[in-house]
Amino acid sequence: MAQDKKFVKEIADINEDFPKWYTDVILKTELVDYGPVKGTMVIRPYGYAIWENIQKELDVRFKKTGVKNAYFPLLIPQSYLMKEAEHVEGFAPEVATVTHAGGQKLQEPLVIRPTSETIICDMYAKWMESYRDLPILINQWCNVMRWEKTTRPFLRTSEFLWQEGHTVHATEEEAEVETQTMLGVYKDFAENCLAIPVLTGRKTDKEKFAGAVATYGMEAMMLDGKSLQAGTSHYLGQNFAKAFDMKFLDKDGTLKYGYSTSWGVSTRLIGALIMAHGDQRGLVIPPVVAPIQVIIIPVCMHKDGVLENAQKLCDVLCDAGIRAEVDKRDATPGWKFNEWEMKGVPVRIEVGPRDIENGKMMAMRRDTLEKAELSLFDVDAVKALLATVQQEMLEKSRERRDSRIVWAESVEQILAGVDNKCFVKAPWCGCRECEEKIKEQTQATARVIAEDSADGKVCAVCGKKAEKIVYFARAY
Amino acid sequence: MAQDKKFVKEIADINEDFPKWYTDVILKTELVDYGPVKGTMVIRPYGYAIWENIQKELDVRFKKTGVKNAYFPLLIPQSYLMKEAEHVEGFAPEVATVTHAGGQKLQEPLVIRPTSETIICDMYAKWMESYRDLPILINQWCNVMRWEKTTRPFLRTSEFLWQEGHTVHATEEEAEVETQTMLGVYKDFAENCLAIPVLTGRKTDKEKFAGAVATYGMEAMMLDGKSLQAGTSHYLGQNFAKAFDMKFLDKDGTLKYGYSTSWGVSTRLIGALIMAHGDQRGLVIPPVVAPIQVIIIPVCMHKDGVLENAQKLCDVLCDAGIRAEVDKRDATPGWKFNEWEMKGVPVRIEVGPRDIENGKMMAMRRDTLEKAELSLFDVDAVKALLATVQQEMLEKSRERRDSRIVWAESVEQILAGVDNKCFVKAPWCGCRECEEKIKEQTQATARVIAEDSADGKVCAVCGKKAEKIVYFARAY
Repeated sequence: MAQDKKFVKEIADINEDFPKWYTDVILKTELVDYGPVKGTMVIRPYGYAIWENIQKELDVRFKKTGVKNAYFPLLIPQSYLMKEAEHVEGFAPEVATVTHAGGQKLQEPLVIRPTSETIICDMYAKWMESYRDLPILINQWCNVMRWEKTTRPFLRTSEFLWQEGHTVHATEEEAEVETQTMLGVYKDFAENCLAIPVLTGRKTDKEKFAGAVATYGMEAMMLDGKSLQAGTSHYLGQNFAKAFDMKFLDKDGTLKYGYSTSWGVSTRLIGALIMAHGDQRGLVIPPVVAPIQVIIIPVCMHKDGVLENAQKLCDVLCDAGIRAEVDKRDATPGWKFNEWEMKGVPVRIEVGPRDIENGKMMAMRRDTLEKAELSLFDVDAVKALLATVQQEMLEKSRERRDSRIVWAESVEQILAGVDNKCFVKAPWCGCRECEEKIKEQTQATARVIAEDSADGKVCAVCGKKAEKIVYFARAY
Repeated sequence: MAQDKKFVKEIADINEDFPKWYTDVILKTELVDYGPVKGTMVIRPYGYAIWENIQKELDVRFKKTGVKNAYFPLLIPQSYLMKEAEHVEGFAPEVATVTHAGGQKLQEPLVIRPTSETIICDMYAKWMESYRDLPILINQWCNVMRWEKTTRPFLRTSEFLWQEGHTVHATEEEAEVETQTMLGVYKDFAENCLAIPVLTGRKTDKEKFAGAVATYGMEAMMLDGKSLQAGTSHYLGQNFAKAFDMKFLDKDGTLKYGYSTSWGVSTRLIGALIMAHGDQRGLVIPPVVAPIQVIIIPVCMHKDGVLENAQKLCDVLCDAGIRAEVDKRDATPGWKFNEWEMKGVPVRIEVGPRDIENGKMMAMRRDTLEKAELSLFDVDAVKALLATVQQEMLEKSRERRDSRIVWAESVEQILAGVDNKCFVKAPWCGCRECEEKIKEQTQATARVIAEDSADGKVCAVCGKKAEKIVYFARAY
């Protein structure tokens, strides 16, 4: 408690001013900095290392489903964006446009991709001739740009990094299966790598992707009770196929339009993990994506054998595939403890002269701040500890989230629920008007449609027969 | 030979029309396609997989030297580009400019990064306060854009992918060491991963990077005798430090400007490996960067046990870390042989009923087309074969290159040398005029300055005392 107060000086109070806590933490831990152009961010090495770990974990999962990576151009002819009616309506207002290049005015302005359905579908149309060419399963890791009015690092920036998968299939059913498969990949990744439990489900039409038939999302609860859309998977039907003439010769000898999907997650996920796990001391990063999993602090660093043993420990941990480092800087252990707690390193190990004498080392978990004495150089014990931290961070988040899902049968109850930092499940008639009324009166939006049956329920707004049960929350 | 003729039908003759051979091969093997905007390319999965392998190999090498990855914004305020006089002169003519975003005209135009020295130095100036913050060693993997008039996929495109490393140091010496270290990393990578021998050395002032004190390059000989600049490492001195006010408080208590470096390689490397190793049948990809290292062709695929054994072989190879695939498509083995030879897979293994009966498999090397019988499932033999291919591809390239370096003492001899598809070593007085004369009369440019002493030699152009021995070549 006394120690926590020390941190309050540097980092805004997490309970009183969560937005400022977030900004303080991401800047002080050097995850990110503001770029010179409004709304842009620089992802600094400590933040980028999280992104690299996210990429590695997701990329393996994508490839296991048969997806391959490729790269499509950044600049899209403005006319392409216009080809799908809903799509242009959704994205045109926020694009950045290149009008001059190589010292000359361009004949047609080019937009920096806000997402790549248009240019990718145009290429797919060239590549697919027969059913033998399908499915096409391609992902790209890239930067995209959406000129947003209100920005916050990781959560909403004019440029961000993401992956966008784009697939085409011969049948509606296959495309729908793909949409669900990738949603499942995202859920598995969010829970088992980021230790963030997510609600997955279909979005309402109001919240769906511009140009999709159906959008499925995964929603994560942040510490302030707000929801963060952490990933989406879209079933695009034949909307883009028709706009871009994506046809193939089917087995029966007729030309047909393909069915496409797209799905993406972005550097937003870094914001999600900060706001799902942090505390007053700073970041708490789950081991799977932590840039440094184990920080070793030599105590009485200049005494004989301390640094050597600390380095030896680091070497055996690294050899076992653990991302470990020794902090050899000329500073007190106490200062280093604070520093690495703020940076959210999952496990800290102290090695001092007495520990070495006794063949022991002291390990501290960042998530619970619990300490445990381990045998010196016991790699398996460290591995087990990291696995426990990973598992228990998910469990703790899940318990927290589950205890904050409430039921409502009126707009007042929805308001009370979100004011109380909860996700609110409520019955809904299915009409846009009622959805908008809820937003106006509570600032909550429909996050995903629940699986529950709405039988016998009435809409929380209009009192008519309910069609769906929906999760409402205020959202990032 | 008869078989080679078959390929000639599809792919232009490598000796008669090398540029068309290149274009035919990259399109037919689906490495790349043209994007809708002039000068842009789509890197298709087979091409992108090479890039992923290049990234993996380089990234490990960078990190071993203490470099960390980060990400800086795509868009740079136009005014930043203007801050370093030489830099703006070099890059301003080829930038693409964003003038409108979010539906409004921007107050200041933004340029899409042609390279990121300016925006990165601006951030470093914020981050470095004392000598304790140095060196800063950061790399980024990203897209850049240079609006070029004449473009060819991989070799010169308006947008390309690359890595750019940017470091700052407290002393001139440290920065110079970094410049050489990274040049060494590139050379090691080019030779041991791409199997391409490279000449490394300092560039003449005419050929150096806009804003550098000194540029070091590595040059690779293509099959047509032309040189391809495969990577560069720049010592920037205090040029950018002064332009961006990159100062730090040194140990002696005084404020000093830092010394910076930058270094980069790009998707050009894919073009390099195609033009360094290809033949009439298509690509020849060195194992270290090959998307597929071993392609397994089942012969008499529908006979009992053939597919099962082919798949089992694939599994044991993959378990051993080899990138192997079975071609199970409904086509003849002969068709598949052609296909995978064109695609340059380093080793092909045929598995038929008789092979299985005898516990054997037939392996063919793509580089020499030599066949060898191996024991079925002998993973070590396959590993050894891949290592041999990798090694011998480098040796063969090196012998070829070395046999094509000639000495010249006049412009006529330089012309004869490059006409004969050679690199030409010639003495040079050091003046820009003579360098330009050579270019005018031979289309050859100074590639790198050789280590050799110029003592007693006279300039091949003006006959005055030579200062340097230089490698001249026509270049991509």
